[in-house]
Amino acid sequence: MSDLLWPGDDRCGDLFSDPAVLAAMVRVEAAWLRALDGPGDDLEKLLHAGDAARIAAAAESGGNPVIPLVGLLRDRLAERHPAAADRLHRGLTSQDVLDTALALCLADTVAHLRPLFARQISALAGLAATHRGTALAGRTLTQHAVPIPFGLKVAGWLGGVLDARDQVRAAAALPVQLGGAAGSLAAPVAVTGSPRATLDLVAAVAADLGLAAGPPWHTRRAPFTRIADAFVACTDAWGRLANDVLVGARPEIGELAEAAGGGSSTMPQKRNPVLSVLIRRAALAGPPLAATLHAAAAAAVDERPDGAWHVEWATLRTLARRTVTAAAQTADLLTGLRVDPDRMAATLASARPGIDAEQRRITGGTGTPYRGAADEIIDAVLQRAGEPW
Amino acid sequence: MSDLLWPGDDRCGDLFSDPAVLAAMVRVEAAWLRALDGPGDDLEKLLHAGDAARIAAAAESGGNPVIPLVGLLRDRLAERHPAAADRLHRGLTSQDVLDTALALCLADTVAHLRPLFARQISALAGLAATHRGTALAGRTLTQHAVPIPFGLKVAGWLGGVLDARDQVRAAAALPVQLGGAAGSLAAPVAVTGSPRATLDLVAAVAADLGLAAGPPWHTRRAPFTRIADAFVACTDAWGRLANDVLVGARPEIGELAEAAGGGSSTMPQKRNPVLSVLIRRAALAGPPLAATLHAAAAAAVDERPDGAWHVEWATLRTLARRTVTAAAQTADLLTGLRVDPDRMAATLASARPGIDAEQRRITGGTGTPYRGAADEIIDAVLQRAGEPW
Amino acid sequence: MSDLLWPGDDRCGDLFSDPAVLAAMVRVEAAWLRALDGPGDDLEKLLHAGDAARIAAAAESGGNPVIPLVGLLRDRLAERHPAAADRLHRGLTSQDVLDTALALCLADTVAHLRPLFARQISALAGLAATHRGTALAGRTLTQHAVPIPFGLKVAGWLGGVLDARDQVRAAAALPVQLGGAAGSLAAPVAVTGSPRATLDLVAAVAADLGLAAGPPWHTRRAPFTRIADAFVACTDAWGRLANDVLVGARPEIGELAEAAGGGSSTMPQKRNPVLSVLIRRAALAGPPLAATLHAAAAAAVDERPDGAWHVEWATLRTLARRTVTAAAQTADLLTGLRVDPDRMAATLASARPGIDAEQRRITGGTGTPYRGAADEIIDAVLQRAGEPW
Amino acid sequence: MSDLLWPGDDRCGDLFSDPAVLAAMVRVEAAWLRALDGPGDDLEKLLHAGDAARIAAAAESGGNPVIPLVGLLRDRLAERHPAAADRLHRGLTSQDVLDTALALCLADTVAHLRPLFARQISALAGLAATHRGTALAGRTLTQHAVPIPFGLKVAGWLGGVLDARDQVRAAAALPVQLGGAAGSLAAPVAVTGSPRATLDLVAAVAADLGLAAGPPWHTRRAPFTRIADAFVACTDAWGRLANDVLVGARPEIGELAEAAGGGSSTMPQKRNPVLSVLIRRAALAGPPLAATLHAAAAAAVDERPDGAWHVEWATLRTLARRTVTAAAQTADLLTGLRVDPDRMAATLASARPGIDAEQRRITGGTGTPYRGAADEIIDAVLQRAGEPW
Repeated sequence: MSDLLWPGDDRCGDLFSDPAVLAAMVRVEAAWLRALDGPGDDLEKLLHAGDAARIAAAAESGGNPVIPLVGLLRDRLAERHPAAADRLHRGLTSQDVLDTALALCLADTVAHLRPLFARQISALAGLAATHRGTALAGRTLTQHAVPIPFGLKVAGWLGGVLDARDQVRAAAALPVQLGGAAGSLAAPVAVTGSPRATLDLVAAVAADLGLAAGPPWHTRRAPFTRIADAFVACTDAWGRLANDVLVGARPEIGELAEAAGGGSSTMPQKRNPVLSVLIRRAALAGPPLAATLHAAAAAAVDERPDGAWHVEWATLRTLARRTVTAAAQTADLLTGLRVDPDRMAATLASARPGIDAEQRRITGGTGTPYRGAADEIIDAVLQRAGEPW
Repeated sequence: MSDLLWPGDDRCGDLFSDPAVLAAMVRVEAAWLRALDGPGDDLEKLLHAGDAARIAAAAESGGNPVIPLVGLLRDRLAERHPAAADRLHRGLTSQDVLDTALALCLADTVAHLRPLFARQISALAGLAATHRGTALAGRTLTQHAVPIPFGLKVAGWLGGVLDARDQVRAAAALPVQLGGAAGSLAAPVAVTGSPRATLDLVAAVAADLGLAAGPPWHTRRAPFTRIADAFVACTDAWGRLANDVLVGARPEIGELAEAAGGGSSTMPQKRNPVLSVLIRRAALAGPPLAATLHAAAAAAVDERPDGAWHVEWATLRTLARRTVTAAAQTADLLTGLRVDPDRMAATLASARPGIDAEQRRITGGTGTPYRGAADEIIDAVLQRAGEPW
Repeated sequence: MSDLLWPGDDRCGDLFSDPAVLAAMVRVEAAWLRALDGPGDDLEKLLHAGDAARIAAAAESGGNPVIPLVGLLRDRLAERHPAAADRLHRGLTSQDVLDTALALCLADTVAHLRPLFARQISALAGLAATHRGTALAGRTLTQHAVPIPFGLKVAGWLGGVLDARDQVRAAAALPVQLGGAAGSLAAPVAVTGSPRATLDLVAAVAADLGLAAGPPWHTRRAPFTRIADAFVACTDAWGRLANDVLVGARPEIGELAEAAGGGSSTMPQKRNPVLSVLIRRAALAGPPLAATLHAAAAAAVDERPDGAWHVEWATLRTLARRTVTAAAQTADLLTGLRVDPDRMAATLASARPGIDAEQRRITGGTGTPYRGAADEIIDAVLQRAGEPW
Repeated sequence: MSDLLWPGDDRCGDLFSDPAVLAAMVRVEAAWLRALDGPGDDLEKLLHAGDAARIAAAAESGGNPVIPLVGLLRDRLAERHPAAADRLHRGLTSQDVLDTALALCLADTVAHLRPLFARQISALAGLAATHRGTALAGRTLTQHAVPIPFGLKVAGWLGGVLDARDQVRAAAALPVQLGGAAGSLAAPVAVTGSPRATLDLVAAVAADLGLAAGPPWHTRRAPFTRIADAFVACTDAWGRLANDVLVGARPEIGELAEAAGGGSSTMPQKRNPVLSVLIRRAALAGPPLAATLHAAAAAAVDERPDGAWHVEWATLRTLARRTVTAAAQTADLLTGLRVDPDRMAATLASARPGIDAEQRRITGGTGTPYRGAADEIIDAVLQRAGEPW
């Protein structure tokens, strides 16, 4: 999978690609079949190259890709295992399969994010510790405010990244969706013979797939809005620090630089802060995508909505891939970030005496350091950074 | 405070009104003054009617209302307590005062929501229990699917409301914002004499105001985006159930009705489902407002951003008032909801035999109930409803 | 009307305030009454102070403010002119009155914008002409690119403002909404006696109110989405130029400054670019508001929608007032903008030889000017600026 | 190109696919080369299968796909025409090529939309004329209001579609982007020798590509926001009519049906209104995408922005393909729409006498028709429908 119009997208590899989503749907059908049937068939082996495109094209007539997928699997399975073909998808509804497959792809997304968070946090913790004593001009509303340690600025970036990580972690325990046609588990109970056996079946499928068990949520979409909000919280945090790099990388300021700047198609001298630019891009795009998921959640109606469900699928995919791309770009940005303490010192010197005005007003002089509780704030965030995922 | 263009807005009373925000800002200054000074002044008494408008008009020149407020308070205080006037706002920055005041108003918003959630949950639990055995036609993509108990549908509404409540609860512990000009606590430390004394001061002010203590978050905006997302999760959940009422109240369906329908300016026969309409309105408006807060969080830069901070204030207010209005309307809607089991039964009868097709296919007949695990699902959500806030 | 949380809002005065909207609704009822009745009553005189709040509170039960307004007017009119009281609102529906009142308020918004656009365009044209020869470092992706005249940069700002103005102008011809209960003009035809007489009546009311005539548009909301899009196009254009001022006003760059910077509550030296900050704020808030109006338009259903109509009212007001506020702030910003050609020249000198790399590559040297078609581009936009509204 | 998660997407074929965008970029380079050079090379022939993925992967380091494309073309061209390889891209900047390529793809999008609009308009005009006398219950806020002809309802749909078409048409004249590194045309003037020759060159390239000529608009993004708004206006209009079909297709109402309903993976009886569902989906997704483009326009800064430009590309593609998909689905929906006048009459009869209450109040009786100016309104929109694109 590649995207000419979203540079960096190939960092996600096959995550949430059409074949990956298709494989996740098959995994759901296979887990269900196994749970119904004892040791199940290796349904994944029934897929051929080109099936994703074929099913995509066939998805419009019923409104979702599960219907043609089930037909295709059943046909192929019937040749070898007529009984299994008959039990395939028995008791499920399309939304069960697709929602659970999306949950699997989202869990995979979180799995991609974890090591990238770790790289970011490690790089940030290093920068905060290293630059605890590096003074630069604090800026508010674009103007010089008071001096601060660069390590304190980094601690703020790190705090934001930890906030985002915590939000992803809290939203990551996604549930299976297994409810049957209208969320009552009527067909599964008919198949298994009792509610109790059905709830056990749901638990077994959830365990098989590594997802949480729980009641159906066909029209209760908090599992998706929460993780979408968490993804946007990520790009918020990364966008925020990219903004500082973009300011610091302006040649007139020159306090920060990316490890390898990007070139130009016409200007040989250019060293553009490309990673920061692309991270900022993702931060601009995120909030409206989460808003789409909330609008969908709010438009849910009946036992399955008439469009509000359908708009979620591609939106989740786009948000997931862009979040992983931005995570990787941020990890690279931070790992390679070049800091110029001399330039920071020079700017600070040139900002005097204005930048010391508050200190003079409060203390009557400027002889002593004006660091406040920077060390305590940095230490607190470093301690938080050391906590496990 | 009234809003001609948002019917129901007066249910919020003075919540987050200009005078309420002004009072909250004064509360922050007073708490800080007390903490610096031992027993502080009753700053609130210094405010006059008309101050909110006066400060609003004066806010543009510095870009925020704190600057004129501090000037006004200092002038009035100077007459009586010159020493206190001198200590007023000492060590703070505008953002400290305004962010903390917004946190107070948001805490007040949550306090408004709590009893309204309780009313909703109580009404929903009652409906779910009462209608555990009331069958109606389950519907997916607008068409009859399989029969379900109305109590199961209500359990889904209730599950959504509980999801939203949990999210509000998790986001409700808002922190004070006390960081000084650039978030280093430099001026507070200069005032108190040490970082340790300053962190104690921050903790004391937080305790005084009933907020959480913590490091500055001037450019790390997760506290606001999380609660904004939670508010939108609320209107998602309420909008979702209002949609079902709007469908059920269509005269051709007639399964549900509001207690008191709304009239028309020209059609005497009209009984419009007005509460549901107004709840749905709020659900349409919410997601873009939360998106604004995320866009602002992502645009943060430097030690205080150049516009991204400023856009949050009114956005939070609008979102908060609309959430409370919709909460109250939803509580009323649910408390008075009229359910017509006969009409549900009639529709179900007319939907046969089509609506039983799945059951026939799975079980070979329709003689037995086809309720699935409805009871177990209802019981699980009722148990969850009984948990304390 | 004031708004403590949106500094600058008082620049709009009473525009779109509750009393202004109420007066507009009364204007619509009066024009209709006059058209039905020959010389009508001076309905506006029937309004009392406090009516807006009273009607706002009463609006929830029917879902909109027209129902209580008509009741109130009818009661008051009945005392003096029973026959007129009987004809009041005859043939109209609530949506007719409210949509037309909103159209009047939007026309008033455009009337506020016109002179502000004129001030902006005049200031920009002056700057472009004055600084046709002032060289500065062109910047792309934050890095120095090639030299350009500052007048060319201003020409780009001006082109954007003209694009926005054209879009407002094209959307400004708002139609009356006169359709009766379900948009068929059934009641008006019953009142007037014929379709022909009714269409004449509609035309007469439109002319009376200064709006365009046309068929009902109860569920066809392009008139509102188009003007909302145009308002956002305005804040896009102003935000874009404010961004350049915010960069240029950074002390390390220092090429641009606002006439009067804003102060700080704690830092005496501060001169913040407050107008630019507040304009940028409006640019962040605009797009989601227009998205709300599009979401509402897309959710229209039946002959009047169940919430999608109701969400438009407050959204349009907020968007309108913020657009006017930002327009005035932009006019002030541009009128007072301070340009420092020496600083521009110094930055450009320090950017050499890198910034000349493209020229060297293309021409082999840097002796000749590298202005391209700057003059022609500036001239073209100046000519466009001279065209009448 | 296929999209498993957006059923119907394959209706767009190759529109705006990676290879299509790549081909458009090459078309721009070729037109420029021809204009510089007299009869140019057939650059398109230099492309190989797999280039899109290769260039996509290489795009991150410089931040856009033009840089690796130019490198690849130059290498391949150098073997055959060293002089042409040297002139390739001479005077252009990456944004020139990519923006112009996007404009070409958008023009292609509009070309796809034109016949689909024609099909929609033809179907709607037919329905409006056919059902001029078919009475149904007009509905407001979900409740029966007054009787209206079904043809009038269709006229409202048609009016909305014509509004959207007009907006697309007005936004369709997209300009070339040819400005050089910082929008001054410096490099092109250096290449051609004079501003006059350069403007002629720009005009020639525009004519060659079928786009409008004009000054550079690197940071003035109205051309893209206007067409994005127009695309959303389309899905607004189509979503609005799909909503009516979804209501009318509810089995309890049964007044409307899609030609071929969609099936279910488990319920044999199902005939879901799938086209309407998928159209409504697109209507939910559109507004946030246009908001992204406005947010990008408002975030423009310098002579090329640091992320705001980059976020536009994929957003425009997504919006364009979804608009075309929804256009085709709407054309199919309307062409095949089944109308049940008997069911409409039955509902209307059952809605009496309530639905006649207004008529009784206004006229004292219900004997005469209560059609208002339905014919005149229908005729007006039919006349408008007959106007050429």
